Amino acid sequence: MKLKVALDLDRAGKDVAAAIRALLARERVLALNLIGSPGCGKTALLEATLPELAKTHAVAVIEGDIATSRDADRIRALGVPCHLINTGGTCHLPPNLIARALQDVDLASTDILFIENVGNLVCPSTQDVGEDAKVAVLSLPEGDDKVLKYPRLFREAGCLVLNKVDLAGVLRFRREQLASDLAQVKHGLPVFELSALTGVGCPSFLEWVRGLYQKKCGRPTVPGRRRKA
Amino acid sequence: MKLKVALDLDRAGKDVAAAIRALLARERVLALNLIGSPGCGKTALLEATLPELAKTHAVAVIEGDIATSRDADRIRALGVPCHLINTGGTCHLPPNLIARALQDVDLASTDILFIENVGNLVCPSTQDVGEDAKVAVLSLPEGDDKVLKYPRLFREAGCLVLNKVDLAGVLRFRREQLASDLAQVKHGLPVFELSALTGVGCPSFLEWVRGLYQKKCGRPTVPGRRRKA
Repeated sequence: MKLKVALDLDRAGKDVAAAIRALLARERVLALNLIGSPGCGKTALLEATLPELAKTHAVAVIEGDIATSRDADRIRALGVPCHLINTGGTCHLPPNLIARALQDVDLASTDILFIENVGNLVCPSTQDVGEDAKVAVLSLPEGDDKVLKYPRLFREAGCLVLNKVDLAGVLRFRREQLASDLAQVKHGLPVFELSALTGVGCPSFLEWVRGLYQKKCGRPTVPGRRRKA
Repeated sequence: MKLKVALDLDRAGKDVAAAIRALLARERVLALNLIGSPGCGKTALLEATLPELAKTHAVAVIEGDIATSRDADRIRALGVPCHLINTGGTCHLPPNLIARALQDVDLASTDILFIENVGNLVCPSTQDVGEDAKVAVLSLPEGDDKVLKYPRLFREAGCLVLNKVDLAGVLRFRREQLASDLAQVKHGLPVFELSALTGVGCPSFLEWVRGLYQKKCGRPTVPGRRRKA
């Protein structure tokens, strides 16, 4: 059997993530890594919350997609700076792609950076990209049995956004099943039930984001003005 | 930087897939590999169709999940033989795990084998596990923009099951967007619009499955009787 030599990518990735984390701390930028299945509503969550968040904080987005600029176009339509990474097939954003993207993000004018990962409930949860927190996004139509079946993301996450609650009336979704699974996997994980479509529940999520920012960075810069001369 | 030595897993995987394909041909078993996001309805599709299919063909299932026996329990509740693979974190079923699982499947008493892959729209589509066809499963709540964003599965698939059409009235799903994407990625791909919940549309999918079986294997064995002495 042929043998190949591979670099120790795992170790290299950890070094890159640590460097990103140090850079973001120095630049006083909060970075949130949005992870969830295709169609769970990651982009819709940004559409529903960025305009409001932009009133108090300077926001930017790194969009990760295998192909197309569809999600990035939606973010740019909000007037929010957005750097698109097309992975071309890779199932997650590795830290080296984030590091490269950060060269194009004006960190001095950014308070909060959202990284929207490739739609995938599995692989992105295994990657530290130097973020302050992973935000797990799950939607009601995906079913109430997912936390124990795909436990790693929920274990790694700083909060869970339960999206598409506007569909609760037409779906069989047992909240007690979700709660029971979460109690096993990550007791006490903050859960924000919301609908990115109707906007219901979004203020609580925004409050959580702003709280994280304040804890890490203090007072935000005034949006539109550079924080550092 | 440290160096690691890794086996040429890609090449080894192809050899294993070829061996599986030869085994299934010899045993006259049709194998379908179900791939889609978490919660798109892969297990529900099996629940909606296996009881009917079992009237004419001997069926069996290999269930792939990162953790829990939740899906396998649902299949076994139908009285269908089911071998569970818990990947423990791996985002897809690699051919070597299928090969090992096949040692526990009574191929002599099986006409059609369904492999339900780990819920993931990306990674399983890159793996040949010796199946006769990949069945892409997409559900309406995931949105109409997924084919171009996650093109590989749709390019590799033998058909597309568009599930949860019962929710069409409460969702904004533009069928013309899906059709336009499909025309670019895989012109002519058979699409079965159905609801695994209500059963609507399932007969057409079953007809497609039976047609594939007949083309490969001819007449099915009588369910419950061994084909080979």
